[in-house]
Amino acid sequence: MLTFAEKIYEVIEEKNTRVCLGIDPRPESHPLTAAERFDDDPAQMAKALLFYFQAIIEATHDVVACYKLQSAFFEVLGIPGIIAMAQLIADIKSREIPVILDAKRGDIGSTAEAYAKAYLADGVFSVDALTVNPYLGIDSIEPFVKQADSKNKGIFVLVKTSNPGSADFQDLKLSSGESLYEHVADSLDALSQTVVDSNGYSPIGVVVGATHPQELVKMRYALPHSIFLVPGYGAQGGGAGDVAAAFKKGNGAIVNSSRGLTYLTDGDDFATQSRLAAEKMRDAINSAISF
Amino acid sequence: MLTFAEKIYEVIEEKNTRVCLGIDPRPESHPLTAAERFDDDPAQMAKALLFYFQAIIEATHDVVACYKLQSAFFEVLGIPGIIAMAQLIADIKSREIPVILDAKRGDIGSTAEAYAKAYLADGVFSVDALTVNPYLGIDSIEPFVKQADSKNKGIFVLVKTSNPGSADFQDLKLSSGESLYEHVADSLDALSQTVVDSNGYSPIGVVVGATHPQELVKMRYALPHSIFLVPGYGAQGGGAGDVAAAFKKGNGAIVNSSRGLTYLTDGDDFATQSRLAAEKMRDAINSAISF
Repeated sequence: MLTFAEKIYEVIEEKNTRVCLGIDPRPESHPLTAAERFDDDPAQMAKALLFYFQAIIEATHDVVACYKLQSAFFEVLGIPGIIAMAQLIADIKSREIPVILDAKRGDIGSTAEAYAKAYLADGVFSVDALTVNPYLGIDSIEPFVKQADSKNKGIFVLVKTSNPGSADFQDLKLSSGESLYEHVADSLDALSQTVVDSNGYSPIGVVVGATHPQELVKMRYALPHSIFLVPGYGAQGGGAGDVAAAFKKGNGAIVNSSRGLTYLTDGDDFATQSRLAAEKMRDAINSAISF
Repeated sequence: MLTFAEKIYEVIEEKNTRVCLGIDPRPESHPLTAAERFDDDPAQMAKALLFYFQAIIEATHDVVACYKLQSAFFEVLGIPGIIAMAQLIADIKSREIPVILDAKRGDIGSTAEAYAKAYLADGVFSVDALTVNPYLGIDSIEPFVKQADSKNKGIFVLVKTSNPGSADFQDLKLSSGESLYEHVADSLDALSQTVVDSNGYSPIGVVVGATHPQELVKMRYALPHSIFLVPGYGAQGGGAGDVAAAFKKGNGAIVNSSRGLTYLTDGDDFATQSRLAAEKMRDAINSAISF
């Protein structure tokens, strides 16, 4: 059985795509034709988003490397939203495509163990990899690493996020001369070195935003064993040239786009439009990394 | 209508208790008598935890200031666990006791807005206050503040957590001479000053662990407008003397205990034992803060 890092490595080699399609359901953006009926009822919204994203997955599954679900947009729809999330996770897994849950969990001790079990073990929310927030320290990350390692799953720890406010704390200069995010990266690299696979990757991936190309260069060097999940492509301003630095010999990174690949039209051809956009993004990244 | 900060202030004045009872459902710890039938089925576990904590709430509601639900332990039980969480939130709200969801959410832009709406607006997960992780920066916290402010709710931002690993990043010395957590606190105080109520408190509370009494003293001084949520009492090692520093004239803080107040016995009197433990904790804190 392949590990998450091996799955990502192979999917990039075999499908020659580094696109992670972000599933961020925004009910107000859904084309009316995507739902038989549509109103402020969360159950109707959940039904509509399921219809919408199942069509997107059907249309894009061969041109993307993986899917990333943004948990917040399901949680905000209450129980029906969470049921829809579990359904989409199952749909993606049935196609044997890696699925990442972007939930940015983080807690201590047995609570971190519970989150790790919820998302990386065998339940209805079980995904291939989970995003994790490092603020609580290494002992808050270890339970996720342990669960990931035992279940062939992965995590993506936030290092340098794509938003302007990432400068507030992540960029703070330490007395050692490093920035906070560089120190977080060093700590993660130390953890990573104990669990490296034959391709050179560990279950401990990282999040570094496409909006910070210089930091991407530094981080790729500091974290040779981590798969990079790169958000911020497209709508947030990152381009193909910016994200090229996240790759090592064309592998070891996936680039996420949500708004750039979904809700592109109100018409019936929304899924086809998403596929065309994903192909374009795939080709732009592939061109930028060819060397 | 009272704000969350006003509710907490009044409940402390009126009930003379500063105890926050932490609801961390651990199915493996449930007394067998708490469930008609109990096995590895998440639906049965959810039923058992509902029975157990409804009894605890019934027995303790007049001796505690508020309840805090730990989201991870519900999420790990899948859909039935999340339905049970919504039910417990409704039960506590029906008694007009403040309820906090400890979910440590944090994200950027419209995603942070979705989390804020999920937990601080009007849905089935709507609580009085939510814990928030600051790593992504001030622009990731602002959507929570905005939602809290408009709905009379609150947030508790992680500043210095109770675990040993909190030293890894939170204690890092910055080139300015401050620690990271002190810098986070300063940034939060700047945000707080714009939204202070007649008691002197803002919707922006903070989490500072009972396991760091010296840091509590410093933080109380640095964050005069924040209500403190103090974890780490009891099982994690913090005592009544340690948490006294979190209070201003006997108000402005709540002290959480989960393991110290629940799962105290396998017997039928588990709820009575929780009440006795909560009374003891209430009295110990009240003695420690009398001056």
